[in-house]
Amino acid sequence: MIYSTLKNIKCIVLDVDGVLTNGNILVTEDGQQLRTFNVKDGYAIQYAVKQGLLIFVITGANSLGVKKRLEMLGVSEIHLGIKDKLTLLINLLSKYKVNKEHVVFIGDDMPDYQCMEYVGTAIAPADAIDDIKKLCQYISTRSGGEGVVREVLEKMLKLQGKWHSDFFLQSI
Amino acid sequence: MIYSTLKNIKCIVLDVDGVLTNGNILVTEDGQQLRTFNVKDGYAIQYAVKQGLLIFVITGANSLGVKKRLEMLGVSEIHLGIKDKLTLLINLLSKYKVNKEHVVFIGDDMPDYQCMEYVGTAIAPADAIDDIKKLCQYISTRSGGEGVVREVLEKMLKLQGKWHSDFFLQSI
Amino acid sequence: MIYSTLKNIKCIVLDVDGVLTNGNILVTEDGQQLRTFNVKDGYAIQYAVKQGLLIFVITGANSLGVKKRLEMLGVSEIHLGIKDKLTLLINLLSKYKVNKEHVVFIGDDMPDYQCMEYVGTAIAPADAIDDIKKLCQYISTRSGGEGVVREVLEKMLKLQGKWHSDFFLQSI
Amino acid sequence: MIYSTLKNIKCIVLDVDGVLTNGNILVTEDGQQLRTFNVKDGYAIQYAVKQGLLIFVITGANSLGVKKRLEMLGVSEIHLGIKDKLTLLINLLSKYKVNKEHVVFIGDDMPDYQCMEYVGTAIAPADAIDDIKKLCQYISTRSGGEGVVREVLEKMLKLQGKWHSDFFLQSI
Repeated sequence: MIYSTLKNIKCIVLDVDGVLTNGNILVTEDGQQLRTFNVKDGYAIQYAVKQGLLIFVITGANSLGVKKRLEMLGVSEIHLGIKDKLTLLINLLSKYKVNKEHVVFIGDDMPDYQCMEYVGTAIAPADAIDDIKKLCQYISTRSGGEGVVREVLEKMLKLQGKWHSDFFLQSI
Repeated sequence: MIYSTLKNIKCIVLDVDGVLTNGNILVTEDGQQLRTFNVKDGYAIQYAVKQGLLIFVITGANSLGVKKRLEMLGVSEIHLGIKDKLTLLINLLSKYKVNKEHVVFIGDDMPDYQCMEYVGTAIAPADAIDDIKKLCQYISTRSGGEGVVREVLEKMLKLQGKWHSDFFLQSI
Repeated sequence: MIYSTLKNIKCIVLDVDGVLTNGNILVTEDGQQLRTFNVKDGYAIQYAVKQGLLIFVITGANSLGVKKRLEMLGVSEIHLGIKDKLTLLINLLSKYKVNKEHVVFIGDDMPDYQCMEYVGTAIAPADAIDDIKKLCQYISTRSGGEGVVREVLEKMLKLQGKWHSDFFLQSI
Repeated sequence: MIYSTLKNIKCIVLDVDGVLTNGNILVTEDGQQLRTFNVKDGYAIQYAVKQGLLIFVITGANSLGVKKRLEMLGVSEIHLGIKDKLTLLINLLSKYKVNKEHVVFIGDDMPDYQCMEYVGTAIAPADAIDDIKKLCQYISTRSGGEGVVREVLEKMLKLQGKWHSDFFLQSI
């Protein structure tokens, strides 16, 4: 991992399908599309929010369940059903006065392409498509839904001295 | 992959269970049979439809959820509960005036056997049954539900110069 | 596989959890316990029933969804919530006048122990517990829910000349 | 495995997410968070309860489905929505007059940290986080939800001569 960069990150932007999930959708007979989330990702997200890290979620998916799960974790900027992710991202960074060099974007497929070119640090799960991986500063050893977000957030918070300083001295 | 062939494909015919899904069915107490779809497959299907590729789905499954998911992706020929797939396929190719040499069929089990013998290019997931694999011009490295359809469609659209020409020059 | 034995099998007895499923149960908030079945297993079961093979399901599970799925596949002897599997099995074999030497039992855990000692041929998935595997004449390379039943039924029907003789000459 | 220790264990304390489950949560549109349990774990839990082993479940999760599943298995001490696990654990051990040296805690993530430092034997699934694994006397070869609890309970009951003494002589 790119230690020096992660130390200065202020904002993490996450895609949902293939990043927070394994990219699978369970379809019910009445047309609901249900997703599966990872508890270790969830633990790190709620912890990072409490430590003051900015976490944005920008996804093409449009699901009330996704919204409820992310709200429960304390994410305040949850943007569903987004087609032009880059325009939204630029507006959000302007609103929160964050320089794009201090932003990580974790994505896995073409709708994330432009955002991942734009931000300072692009990270992809191991099973992202090849054209996305080529853009990345770091590719996780984990696939989507298997703790990619946990890995990045835990490493980042440890580097910033914010990971459970109550329990143990930071080991990096 | 068989590059020269894929360049001339006009129509892709897909089975559902074991191709668009991993072959698992979640059974609810009231008898619903729920399936899991892959978002990367879905992205490629809706993109291919927009590029004018013909996509037919022919399945023995009879599920409203499957229908809704495929409609959402823009697939217009969705045929559920089909026992004699070959007769239907011949009728569809006649209706759309497509030569069977310009057709790919992706299937994994005995109900797909006759169609896969019939079309120009038969493709199977890595976990298809052996008797189906023997018929194939190409066997994917991916199992059903793990992006077989994405792999084929992305490769085909790149060969035909139709994959995100807005984002980058085609690399094959 | 034990070819000579499988050629003379008249009856297959199946456990559900860990054999027809991967042993996972999805629990809903209102206490439903949902299971996942394999379509390739299902195809072989309905086909075997049509060829006149006896298929019994004996399980400790008590789920209406399991019953509906198996009925749809044409299984007539479906016994749910069974604690003493051996007594039931002996009664069923007596009712259908089947010699225990012509019976396969596929099981994976302690509740199957006595039945698997009793019948002529005991088969286990790759992820059965060790004490069950020690009883077996054959251990599948597949885990529960990943096509164990399909593997056994297809092999058996091919050996008996009953597998899709319409499509191709039998290859064993 | 640490044979001499397991022989004297009187009480097993279990986390839910990542231990009894694989750490995944299926989110429905109305905000339910559904978990998947392992039948082989379940078989060992109900069997261990019948043999008089104390089984406590202490989890941050707050789900009626989890409660119902564990009640069905005969677990009497089920504590959901717990933030301070250690205080509760100390109270429970005091109530049941169990020395912490005779306790196993199986956990996988930071909320289990203090309890796992406290008890005599800490065990983690193969996919627990590194900081938890460092605390452990034993790390399972299995990941959460794939039979970690079954492995520990079966080994312990065999060492204590309580595993199916009706069926076979104990092999260790």
